[in-house]
Amino acid sequence: MDESALFALSYGMFILSTEADGIKNACIVNTVAQVTQDPIRVSLTILKKNYTTELISKSNKFSVSVLSKKASLDTVAHFGYSSGRNKDKFEGIDYKIDGINNPIVENDCIATMSCKVVQTIDLGTHLLFIADVVEANKLSKDEPMTYSYYRDLKAGKVSNQSKTEENKELEKEEKPLYECVVCHYIYDGDIPFEDLPDDYLCPICHKPKSAFKRIN
Amino acid sequence: MDESALFALSYGMFILSTEADGIKNACIVNTVAQVTQDPIRVSLTILKKNYTTELISKSNKFSVSVLSKKASLDTVAHFGYSSGRNKDKFEGIDYKIDGINNPIVENDCIATMSCKVVQTIDLGTHLLFIADVVEANKLSKDEPMTYSYYRDLKAGKVSNQSKTEENKELEKEEKPLYECVVCHYIYDGDIPFEDLPDDYLCPICHKPKSAFKRIN
Repeated sequence: MDESALFALSYGMFILSTEADGIKNACIVNTVAQVTQDPIRVSLTILKKNYTTELISKSNKFSVSVLSKKASLDTVAHFGYSSGRNKDKFEGIDYKIDGINNPIVENDCIATMSCKVVQTIDLGTHLLFIADVVEANKLSKDEPMTYSYYRDLKAGKVSNQSKTEENKELEKEEKPLYECVVCHYIYDGDIPFEDLPDDYLCPICHKPKSAFKRIN
Repeated sequence: MDESALFALSYGMFILSTEADGIKNACIVNTVAQVTQDPIRVSLTILKKNYTTELISKSNKFSVSVLSKKASLDTVAHFGYSSGRNKDKFEGIDYKIDGINNPIVENDCIATMSCKVVQTIDLGTHLLFIADVVEANKLSKDEPMTYSYYRDLKAGKVSNQSKTEENKELEKEEKPLYECVVCHYIYDGDIPFEDLPDDYLCPICHKPKSAFKRIN
């Protein structure tokens, strides 16, 4: 089986946020899709180990901000490359509170949706949530960021208007990039990936170094 | 609620095929996503009323061909704009039989996956299948067709190398295009959409004329 065939599937890029018992958190996901029109429901698939998943399991609600193609990689890095268990990801960030009391990011995004979970399906490593969309707002006519575009952006194959100095530097160096095939975290540390210790674990899903594949 | 916000979600475009009791069928879907890596599983959401859904419910297997960005609109029209209840969609079409005895299309596609259903979730109007990927092949390094690109192609906003004379004509005329928001069928008849009778029903999901929205 050629697992790379799975990379031919298309996804968007989203900031997923929630609030449970007064604790706010958010992360980056690529698996939100509309599943029915009547009622308007979406599905969200997410790794069980994520802190956001834990909070959604308590709160039974989540909100989705659709990232713009023009969004800065810094925004993805801010919400995606660390766990909210150790820091408040909303500190110093501009956000709103939606109608279901979730924090919701609008900057760098083209649409938002507020969702109430109606069904949770256990998929082993992941949970699949089915949720009613109770609020939806279109913010911009810009194109959404696809996961494929994000990978190209990260790998320096394309650039967008929000490219930071840090990312320009990255492009210049053609640094090899390694991605965790389980949770899609892209290693971005100062130590070359090959030089990481053998017991290195993905900081997001805790899979071993062998779960990483070079993507550029 | 601004329902147009839902259009900001990203999807791919796929030929979905199956075989049950010797009957082969295929249709076009945009909702296939990987849900777990260990084991490698995908989700597929599809309208219950589709003939392909009926066959998958019997056979518990389906195959997915990821359409290329270069795919002809004729290919989408062939598999997507009619029901297999009335015709054999594979007649005169070049296809293979995969390891789980499904017909599978490779022309105009960049990857294929053969999947065995492990769980079926009833979502009211739709079924959500969770399936093990048992075979996967990468066919080309070309980009996948996204649903957004397909809409632009159909509306004549972009063109690809496989553009047919019929589609060039469409672009020239800037014909208004209407899409069923339920099943995403795009009306493409000779009678202007506005002139269709009030009791017109979507030929795919049988929703009323009011379920259609202009997309260009």
